[in-house]
Amino acid sequence: MPMVLGQNQYGKAETRVVRVRRDTDRHEVKDLNVGVALSGDLSDTHFTGGNDKVLPTDTMKNTVFAFAREHGIDSAETYGICLARHFVESQPSITRARIRIEEYPWNRITSAPGRDRFVGADEIRHSFVRDGSETRTTEIVWEHGRVRVISGLKDLVVMNTTASEFRGYIKDRYTTLQEAYDRILATRVGARWRFSFDASAGASEPDWERSYAQVRRHLLEAFAETYSYSLQQSLYAMADRVLTHRHEVDEVRLSLPNKHHFLVDMERMGVENDREVYYAADRPYGLIEGTVHREGVTPLIPVD
Amino acid sequence: MPMVLGQNQYGKAETRVVRVRRDTDRHEVKDLNVGVALSGDLSDTHFTGGNDKVLPTDTMKNTVFAFAREHGIDSAETYGICLARHFVESQPSITRARIRIEEYPWNRITSAPGRDRFVGADEIRHSFVRDGSETRTTEIVWEHGRVRVISGLKDLVVMNTTASEFRGYIKDRYTTLQEAYDRILATRVGARWRFSFDASAGASEPDWERSYAQVRRHLLEAFAETYSYSLQQSLYAMADRVLTHRHEVDEVRLSLPNKHHFLVDMERMGVENDREVYYAADRPYGLIEGTVHREGVTPLIPVD
Amino acid sequence: MPMVLGQNQYGKAETRVVRVRRDTDRHEVKDLNVGVALSGDLSDTHFTGGNDKVLPTDTMKNTVFAFAREHGIDSAETYGICLARHFVESQPSITRARIRIEEYPWNRITSAPGRDRFVGADEIRHSFVRDGSETRTTEIVWEHGRVRVISGLKDLVVMNTTASEFRGYIKDRYTTLQEAYDRILATRVGARWRFSFDASAGASEPDWERSYAQVRRHLLEAFAETYSYSLQQSLYAMADRVLTHRHEVDEVRLSLPNKHHFLVDMERMGVENDREVYYAADRPYGLIEGTVHREGVTPLIPVD
Amino acid sequence: MPMVLGQNQYGKAETRVVRVRRDTDRHEVKDLNVGVALSGDLSDTHFTGGNDKVLPTDTMKNTVFAFAREHGIDSAETYGICLARHFVESQPSITRARIRIEEYPWNRITSAPGRDRFVGADEIRHSFVRDGSETRTTEIVWEHGRVRVISGLKDLVVMNTTASEFRGYIKDRYTTLQEAYDRILATRVGARWRFSFDASAGASEPDWERSYAQVRRHLLEAFAETYSYSLQQSLYAMADRVLTHRHEVDEVRLSLPNKHHFLVDMERMGVENDREVYYAADRPYGLIEGTVHREGVTPLIPVD
Repeated sequence: MPMVLGQNQYGKAETRVVRVRRDTDRHEVKDLNVGVALSGDLSDTHFTGGNDKVLPTDTMKNTVFAFAREHGIDSAETYGICLARHFVESQPSITRARIRIEEYPWNRITSAPGRDRFVGADEIRHSFVRDGSETRTTEIVWEHGRVRVISGLKDLVVMNTTASEFRGYIKDRYTTLQEAYDRILATRVGARWRFSFDASAGASEPDWERSYAQVRRHLLEAFAETYSYSLQQSLYAMADRVLTHRHEVDEVRLSLPNKHHFLVDMERMGVENDREVYYAADRPYGLIEGTVHREGVTPLIPVD
Repeated sequence: MPMVLGQNQYGKAETRVVRVRRDTDRHEVKDLNVGVALSGDLSDTHFTGGNDKVLPTDTMKNTVFAFAREHGIDSAETYGICLARHFVESQPSITRARIRIEEYPWNRITSAPGRDRFVGADEIRHSFVRDGSETRTTEIVWEHGRVRVISGLKDLVVMNTTASEFRGYIKDRYTTLQEAYDRILATRVGARWRFSFDASAGASEPDWERSYAQVRRHLLEAFAETYSYSLQQSLYAMADRVLTHRHEVDEVRLSLPNKHHFLVDMERMGVENDREVYYAADRPYGLIEGTVHREGVTPLIPVD
Repeated sequence: MPMVLGQNQYGKAETRVVRVRRDTDRHEVKDLNVGVALSGDLSDTHFTGGNDKVLPTDTMKNTVFAFAREHGIDSAETYGICLARHFVESQPSITRARIRIEEYPWNRITSAPGRDRFVGADEIRHSFVRDGSETRTTEIVWEHGRVRVISGLKDLVVMNTTASEFRGYIKDRYTTLQEAYDRILATRVGARWRFSFDASAGASEPDWERSYAQVRRHLLEAFAETYSYSLQQSLYAMADRVLTHRHEVDEVRLSLPNKHHFLVDMERMGVENDREVYYAADRPYGLIEGTVHREGVTPLIPVD
Repeated sequence: MPMVLGQNQYGKAETRVVRVRRDTDRHEVKDLNVGVALSGDLSDTHFTGGNDKVLPTDTMKNTVFAFAREHGIDSAETYGICLARHFVESQPSITRARIRIEEYPWNRITSAPGRDRFVGADEIRHSFVRDGSETRTTEIVWEHGRVRVISGLKDLVVMNTTASEFRGYIKDRYTTLQEAYDRILATRVGARWRFSFDASAGASEPDWERSYAQVRRHLLEAFAETYSYSLQQSLYAMADRVLTHRHEVDEVRLSLPNKHHFLVDMERMGVENDREVYYAADRPYGLIEGTVHREGVTPLIPVD
């Protein structure tokens, strides 16, 4: 009895493309890591190795580079939509394209305050330092003439040194945790948010750059301002804040590992430790995940 | 207008538990990394921080350790099923438990051939060396009284130095790849397979240890024996081989990154290179993913 | 014939200590990873397992935490000197202590421009976001009553999009590289600098925090301002700039991996690429390392 | 006052070369990661960017590939010596070459017991599975016509489940550790050993492959057979064993992180835990390092 080929996809992962704009003497940089995954009528290559419906992954890589030149990279989202559409529309065997992009932010190297000028006035305009605070992400899926855009960020690490409690929880036979009335709350924010935008409806694209900056700001502010009784509560507050302020976003999913900071017990050393010295633990860690969305929309961000 | 809380889960990730059996003077070791994720009636903690339906993640960690003592770890699967059932059945607010386990294999340190004996005859029985070849995985989901077991492996790196071609593919404007009539084929196998076993039907558990060893063997053998015209073809052959030989498995999903080995062009150095010296590339890489399943079953292994 | 025990040291690596200052309602955070390594009269424990001259590494960990409470952490350097001195002066068997510290910088979460205020005026004073741009390091060695302080940074990634050439080099039989008249120059700066400060001379400590900020600034500015004919030239310029401006520093050693950005050749695709689209390569990479020091001083920063 | 250029070196790091031997129908594979670092008369490139004494790092990469073809790779050591000699002898400006190599071992994919044969009898002879247990290393330095070879291994993880104690140590004010009469002892062995071989003396090379296998065996056996009162004692026993049995080795340096396995205290859960369930901790960890050498030789393996 033959077996059935189910969902399958293939593509080129992690093409590292850097584009420099030199239109003015103030250069601009986009630094991306691009993944392509295509699906369609691909049974032959699985069953017999017949490749006549297979666009090589090497060609996908070439296309990623060529499109950066031919279409530019105004934003990762616009560029990714352009790539996704291309693969589906140019290849009869391909019915679905998924483009995943990581973007690495760079800041300009600036002259320090109190320093008159750089030796060459031009030079600072082409000099950059990597901003390691977080990685920006986007995922575009083009299928049946529709496009779905889910952007996000990862590795944004935040901490509140107070204004966090954890108590009133279930105690069973295996519970030994002491209730906390004032703890450090720290997490490495992983966030994804889905735009209501659908290219097929002829809608114009949102301002992706501004939208990103604002969503990021709302996530940070909501985390900082929430007096937290549980990390779940902070999660909901952060997602709710984004949806309330950013109308282009329909759905937010957050993944918040609880980066535990344990107050070090120094009693046996005869040292008092009044919420001053903490041990930052690696593993195990709590992990809180959840989706918040507008009423009436169907949540589509994948659940791990 | 209030926002809607969608899918959510919380738990303790990466509890590193090692269990030693000392029943006989030949010790046995199980070395696991356990993740717990629970879902249920958890709206309160998101909306108000009310934790009276929240079992602390610290308690999950304690339970992971306590169950290793109270129930032992005959296999990661049996142990994980036991944990999943416990959380759902003991907590009214919890309706779904997912247990993910990584297992790190260890081999015994053996006396080298030609060496008479270890100084102390007992000692070798408690000495181990980590087998770094791959990581074994399992995921158990307990929900509505049903259990689903998906086991797997990751980071199993394999290579054929011949018996691989890639040609006859689509050439479009961006295609520059030369057809290959004899190439190295190498991949880092990521595999997941779903068992037909459902605890709720009162069925007895498969022999998890033997099943794992046999699935692994079939993956390796099918990779080695397949004359490959595409990595997709090797993927299907590997999954098909498992399903054909292991009746306890209903569905297999493979993720095969193409670890490119490019023949180094030395012509400009005046050196001929007849399939002898290769450059092992990191990024970008092809990525081939697919599910193969028995006819009539609904595939359930998540797609990335 | 017995073998000789040579250099040996033991200690506790990677104690993750976080200290919060709550003196005012504006909290301050220091986030460190501390390693201790001690040497001395330790032959017994190697030859017979006799531990009567061994301070447990667990005690070193405890001391790291206790000193954060008892002495505070004004700067990693001051704190590390304090720890190093303690181990040597309190343990007769210990003659040398090396303290290595990594420091992870945090920024305050600030209210966005155009936003009136945070909901609670207090809250922003305890909220932080990790600055992932680089890691600050220091190493203190206390031996024979003398202290040597080498501070540094790592993973500071910088890029010039022009003002870099590479030509005029040796061409031998194996050379295929084309000369470059305008290339991207990018590197991940690893820097270490040694202070002239020696506690044994009764000297007062430099202002470590200000010194770090200024050294970092000079490294960035010198990289940005140097029209570069080789990465070695940039290296010398950066180190020279630090020594010229910071009199508390006697010696600088830099490690500069050349993060190659190759212009993508699109000719075969019929696309022209005028210094616009680059491929950011991972491996292999050039690696340029060198020490620059004042005349008359003996360089002491270890060479890899 | 001008600054002084001290020790400097430059080279190409991490060239990933794979060589396949196809002389017989049973293929052989060598999988290496090669780093080159050269020193010499290189002041010009630092001071002015003049590159006329600079062999490009791209040429070093080409040479690594070409030599794999022209000279083969019988062992990493022989190949590395050949490369080091080449750079010094062919370039007047270069006086010192350091070659570092990591080697990744592969095993053949074998037919499982009980299975008659592979479908194609030839196929198994070209199929390999990566052996992830450890990485083999070597470092060759060629300078002033002399060669120094230091080989080693890293990431060899071993564990004894008994036969380890730790007691009788110093207790000071900060000591809280309980003495252990039966603990797990686990470590990730990092080892380097220096050969007495010097090419300049016209000596013939050792059998590098056999030497490696035997040193590895002695390290494992000595770890397993030593009843340990401290990890330092195990370190000395391991190094001493190698020197006693392998006359081609003059000096051994080991780095042994103590991979702590803490017995989980379940008393508050009402569960007894008699040396059965352990928590495998990540950080912090003890770190024991030491050199053992023959009498009369000068130890040369660098100390961290």
